[in-house]
Amino acid sequence: MGINFSNFLSSKSKNKRMLEFQDLNHIDGVSISTLSANLYNNKRDDLVMFYFRDGANHASVYTQSKIISENIKWNLNQKSKKIYSLLVNTRNANCFTGKRGYRSLEKIAETISGMLSEKQKIDEDFPKKIKPKEIIFGCTGTIGEIFPEDKIKDKIPELVEKIKYTQNKYIWMKAALGIMTTDTQPKLAMEECLIGNSEIKLFGIAKGSGMIQPNMATTLGYIFTDADISNEILKKLLKKNISTTFNAITCDGDTSTNDMVSIFATGKVKHSKINNINDQRIRAFEEALNKVLLNLAKRVVADGEGASKFITINIMNCKTESDARKIAFSIANSPLVKTAITGGDPNWGRIIMALGKADVSINFEKLSIKFGNINIVQNGKINPNYNEDEASEYMKNDNIEINIDIFSGSKNFTTYTMDLTKKYIDINSDYRS
Amino acid sequence: MGINFSNFLSSKSKNKRMLEFQDLNHIDGVSISTLSANLYNNKRDDLVMFYFRDGANHASVYTQSKIISENIKWNLNQKSKKIYSLLVNTRNANCFTGKRGYRSLEKIAETISGMLSEKQKIDEDFPKKIKPKEIIFGCTGTIGEIFPEDKIKDKIPELVEKIKYTQNKYIWMKAALGIMTTDTQPKLAMEECLIGNSEIKLFGIAKGSGMIQPNMATTLGYIFTDADISNEILKKLLKKNISTTFNAITCDGDTSTNDMVSIFATGKVKHSKINNINDQRIRAFEEALNKVLLNLAKRVVADGEGASKFITINIMNCKTESDARKIAFSIANSPLVKTAITGGDPNWGRIIMALGKADVSINFEKLSIKFGNINIVQNGKINPNYNEDEASEYMKNDNIEINIDIFSGSKNFTTYTMDLTKKYIDINSDYRS
Repeated sequence: MGINFSNFLSSKSKNKRMLEFQDLNHIDGVSISTLSANLYNNKRDDLVMFYFRDGANHASVYTQSKIISENIKWNLNQKSKKIYSLLVNTRNANCFTGKRGYRSLEKIAETISGMLSEKQKIDEDFPKKIKPKEIIFGCTGTIGEIFPEDKIKDKIPELVEKIKYTQNKYIWMKAALGIMTTDTQPKLAMEECLIGNSEIKLFGIAKGSGMIQPNMATTLGYIFTDADISNEILKKLLKKNISTTFNAITCDGDTSTNDMVSIFATGKVKHSKINNINDQRIRAFEEALNKVLLNLAKRVVADGEGASKFITINIMNCKTESDARKIAFSIANSPLVKTAITGGDPNWGRIIMALGKADVSINFEKLSIKFGNINIVQNGKINPNYNEDEASEYMKNDNIEINIDIFSGSKNFTTYTMDLTKKYIDINSDYRS
Repeated sequence: MGINFSNFLSSKSKNKRMLEFQDLNHIDGVSISTLSANLYNNKRDDLVMFYFRDGANHASVYTQSKIISENIKWNLNQKSKKIYSLLVNTRNANCFTGKRGYRSLEKIAETISGMLSEKQKIDEDFPKKIKPKEIIFGCTGTIGEIFPEDKIKDKIPELVEKIKYTQNKYIWMKAALGIMTTDTQPKLAMEECLIGNSEIKLFGIAKGSGMIQPNMATTLGYIFTDADISNEILKKLLKKNISTTFNAITCDGDTSTNDMVSIFATGKVKHSKINNINDQRIRAFEEALNKVLLNLAKRVVADGEGASKFITINIMNCKTESDARKIAFSIANSPLVKTAITGGDPNWGRIIMALGKADVSINFEKLSIKFGNINIVQNGKINPNYNEDEASEYMKNDNIEINIDIFSGSKNFTTYTMDLTKKYIDINSDYRS
């Protein structure tokens, strides 16, 4: 279970990487429906609806930006114990759209609530009236444009009609494709684990690209499980595991107004009740959740705008994790480090520069820097046996690993990023059209 | 006096801007000598010596990086009241070169001190023995390579021999060219002012490019004046005026280990003594100093690696200057904002994104955003009369001005930057050679 990420990234085909996808199949309590509301003025799917017929426990984490989109404001205002639907649109961020943008979501939520309540009456023995506040939204796309309320609302009947109760790999693929913006590849991941003796599934889809560009992108990640875990525990698990996964990646250091990662638990698999996050019986679940999040996060980076190389930066033995993070991101966000890697240049001087500007006090006399297993700096000095030809050879890989040991404590942090290429400039300097 | 910077930047020739240079001429007490020590293995000048035959009062500001080059360590250790020589080499940063790099400077300083003391014996009525600690260094170039001590030391006799006591525009131009790395244009500026009734000159040269790339670049700025001002007042003036000039520019957000801006005052013009920084008689001098620094700083940005557009970002009416700075740099360092400008796209959504990630609390209901004079956002809403065609037309200019009013206080900050182009990638992904 779980693909070997480094394998697919080091595949020979540089430009068109041989992406292997896991086949996501049925997960009890989740239904998916996708279609085109013509938001892009072409026929691509741009609306994806997730429907939880018996509701789902849930937790979400959102962007750190001081400006948040109207859909995130909406989501934060809904305090429902269970969520019945998540609607994701791609094309319009519904950000900086003011009260009008918020009211559009209200109207759409009312329409969805009406249609799904009707569906409950037809399909269920004990129909439930689904309330607007039991519906949340994911939005991505251009900031500041009027939210296409009518175009979306008009498609709700068709979306609800298309709902099927049995999911297969095709519908998951359609969902992953339907939330893409400038992504070149859909992003899916899955894990299975045990809680007690019960087999549990965790499926996830994500979109990224640009990390994060408000013109046409945002990071969205949605995890679905059939486990029965409370909102409170889901929240704790998500917060804990986001910091080493979706919050450990960076493409260009920019931050979207719309970032959102959510987990939904349908509770369809019965298992012994989990009462708190320290319960040993959810360790395997947490591990699986971390794997799904990390797998998706890495896919976001690997497909970052214009990426030609995948970069892992391991910062080891700092005094605090915060120090390790600062150093890792100072390197990962440096255009000079990124462009050196683009050019296959083992220019460790730029790593030194990035260490210097990281705003962490470092004892440079202990410092060790390795590219992969190649020792470059040891005890703060250039390794006398350092062979630049060997390092240049290493830099030809699609997967570059930078290992830095600070030797001042025991805290580590790993960040994932990609190089900075002309293609990034192409994508981002292209006039919105 | 003082060129109109916006004029030269908006000149028609985009790629090869018609740079107008001021002719720097003689300044009493400063001598310049340049030559090639073959550090680049071609014949370009790479060593520039400034010699102050009667010494110069001086002050310097250095990089904020936690890693500083050996020459900056050297300079910080010299507490001499007067400096007799500044030697600048381009090619080797003398950074991460350890004690060996420091000792090389010691040796070179000894050689210079010997040669210049000999020169004093021949030329001066009251010869002075110049000490190694009265000599400082500017270095720029690759990090981590062994400092070419011998190549430089061997050229000191020739450098000293070439010293002429009368300077003209050609020798200033040679000095500005001799400190360049990946700069495409030399950077010179001058102002004149009065202290009391005495005419004072301020000349300056600088190098930048990349701001700041440790592979082959660093910002260096050197100001020379014939005024008679104490070290203490020079220090205060420099610190005060650097924050709105050299510390107000950014190209890629990276920080060099070697940045250095210095002022040298030969005191050859006699004027009424200035006893403290509040003395009204130095206001005109301070203004002239600010103009020279700003002129040079803008030239550094305009010649930033790959720059096709010069961008001015005015942040107005913040609670604190620190808030205004944070917002300005969040916008100026955003790859997404820069690439939108590269593409001529008035993508104000990316400005919103950069405001959101600036880590300053902003009342978005008051916010105003203008590109030039074009009102885009007013009172936190899109201007109903906003015409994107007009904005697109504006974005075709070589000079882009972004004006943002926060309406929460009275503090302003202006930053200068340039766009992010494929040429930046070309320059920085090119393997060192």
